[in-house]
Amino acid sequence: MKTLKIGLFGCGTVGSGVYAILTEQRERIAGETGVDIEIARVCVRDPLKQRAVVLPPEIVTTDAAAIFDDPEIDVVIEVIGGERDALGIISRALVQGRNVVTANKDVIAKYLPQLRRLEELHGGHLVYGASVCGSVPILKIIDETLLTDRVGALRGVVNGSTNFILTRLADGWTWDEALSLAEANGFLEADPSADLSGADAARKLSILAFHAFGVHVLPEDIDTTGIEAITAEDLERATAARCTIKLVAEAILDDGEVRLSVAPRAVPLDSSLASVRDEVNIVEIDCDGIGTQRFTGKGAGSYPTANAVVSDLLDILARRRYRRWAAVIAANEPGGVECV
Amino acid sequence: MKTLKIGLFGCGTVGSGVYAILTEQRERIAGETGVDIEIARVCVRDPLKQRAVVLPPEIVTTDAAAIFDDPEIDVVIEVIGGERDALGIISRALVQGRNVVTANKDVIAKYLPQLRRLEELHGGHLVYGASVCGSVPILKIIDETLLTDRVGALRGVVNGSTNFILTRLADGWTWDEALSLAEANGFLEADPSADLSGADAARKLSILAFHAFGVHVLPEDIDTTGIEAITAEDLERATAARCTIKLVAEAILDDGEVRLSVAPRAVPLDSSLASVRDEVNIVEIDCDGIGTQRFTGKGAGSYPTANAVVSDLLDILARRRYRRWAAVIAANEPGGVECV
Repeated sequence: MKTLKIGLFGCGTVGSGVYAILTEQRERIAGETGVDIEIARVCVRDPLKQRAVVLPPEIVTTDAAAIFDDPEIDVVIEVIGGERDALGIISRALVQGRNVVTANKDVIAKYLPQLRRLEELHGGHLVYGASVCGSVPILKIIDETLLTDRVGALRGVVNGSTNFILTRLADGWTWDEALSLAEANGFLEADPSADLSGADAARKLSILAFHAFGVHVLPEDIDTTGIEAITAEDLERATAARCTIKLVAEAILDDGEVRLSVAPRAVPLDSSLASVRDEVNIVEIDCDGIGTQRFTGKGAGSYPTANAVVSDLLDILARRRYRRWAAVIAANEPGGVECV
Repeated sequence: MKTLKIGLFGCGTVGSGVYAILTEQRERIAGETGVDIEIARVCVRDPLKQRAVVLPPEIVTTDAAAIFDDPEIDVVIEVIGGERDALGIISRALVQGRNVVTANKDVIAKYLPQLRRLEELHGGHLVYGASVCGSVPILKIIDETLLTDRVGALRGVVNGSTNFILTRLADGWTWDEALSLAEANGFLEADPSADLSGADAARKLSILAFHAFGVHVLPEDIDTTGIEAITAEDLERATAARCTIKLVAEAILDDGEVRLSVAPRAVPLDSSLASVRDEVNIVEIDCDGIGTQRFTGKGAGSYPTANAVVSDLLDILARRRYRRWAAVIAANEPGGVECV
């Protein structure tokens, strides 16, 4: 049986989930795929921090070199979050020709073309399905759909935290009540401003548009309005009109131009966008041939994200590359990407 | 560039769609996947029949041997429909160790374990994602989800024709009006009894349960009620109770036992099952870890099915095998499967 050795960077909420799934399901995954997946090293900032999993001391390190200098490590998983250090880890691993799995939407949305270029130059694979919509394999579905069809538009509710808050406001809760339950459920970042401002949704939309339309639009260039100004009264008015308010991310192909936007919108109560409550995400894709497809599933929380990371990892075992990004990738020299 | 040669059996509604997609998208698919897909032979009953596509005379044959005796053909696509002849084509191609793509839910639901056994014995791959829910790659999603999670239950609206009729009845149409529009739209088989009786939904449920739970239940052993007895008055009563009637296929894992059923059920108007109109299908999967996921897309019609066949074909290029069917497959010697 083939063994696949993993170097895991980060063991917080998502990392602990990844560690738990891979160790608990090790035999099952080996049985199904014929590959034995071993977590060889876990690199963390603080080895003494309280975690949801108990790591064997001999695999824990605070030194990135323990992973980068080990030629036996096949795949690097980056789940430290943030931007600068994570970018360094991802790009260095790619420069080494390794396969990389990340759930980091900040880095992916911003540097996708450069990172794909590193992939091309050095032969590793970069997978990041976990960065958009947690458990729903939406990027893969888009990639495969596009082999035989065209996407005319896509839209979705892609930020679990804001959808949780809007759902509760629509139920008559106050902002404070909604915020504190979102926080208690682990749906809110320490600094929730990226969620509330729509910046997080814009990152996911940027990644979705890269896959659906082969364009790279920086998240900060997307016309974005958050939910901070939405009041309980706005939701009451929407309900009276048989609508509700959702933070809608949308990409439309219009006369050869891709238009992206993130904004709170009133959507009819019986629409599919209105149907997703709390942390559930939805993405709708309008295809020329097969019509509209809709995908919903949990988009926030530790387990769905960790599960998506593991699915991505398994995907590397049967990886397909698509070439429609050739132009946008070739236009980006990887010089701008800094290695650790 | 690698070339993949196809032998296509059947060029009716679905076959014409497959031929059209593969010839129109040939360059694009080659560009994306690095594989040039060539339809080498099309085997039909009547070469002179009027078709939606014009076949080059030199690739048309009425003799199955033109495909079976050609060692250069890598993949056999079976879209003749029906049971006996289709089973013969699929099983013979598998015995020859070839890869096979089919949309044939009759054959797959009935003979899946035996056919998977032929696959194991002779090394070919059998893919049949198009047999359930047309354009939504639901079987693949279940397979990949199960590598890291468990399915507790699944349910769906999986027959486009009956859903079309029930949607129209709920809108106040008569049975005759609904039936004739369904027929005009190509959503109804020449003999619609398998749709109306629930037998078609039972076949799809059997295939879904094989993937979700690793069991093989013959469609005729599934507790099945059709929609023949549903009246406009039933739908009026349902609407008055803020419900609508859907033909629901359901599989529940209950104390280690898998219980399957197909029956018309009143579902609340604001439920996801109620949200799919006309020929749209939905499948919901309840997973232990990631919660409930929902997938909707067109389930009937020529293009969605043809598109799904092509997606399956492309899937062969990066095929993964799962082993959790080992027991149910090993229990079936392939003797019962007849070759042409």
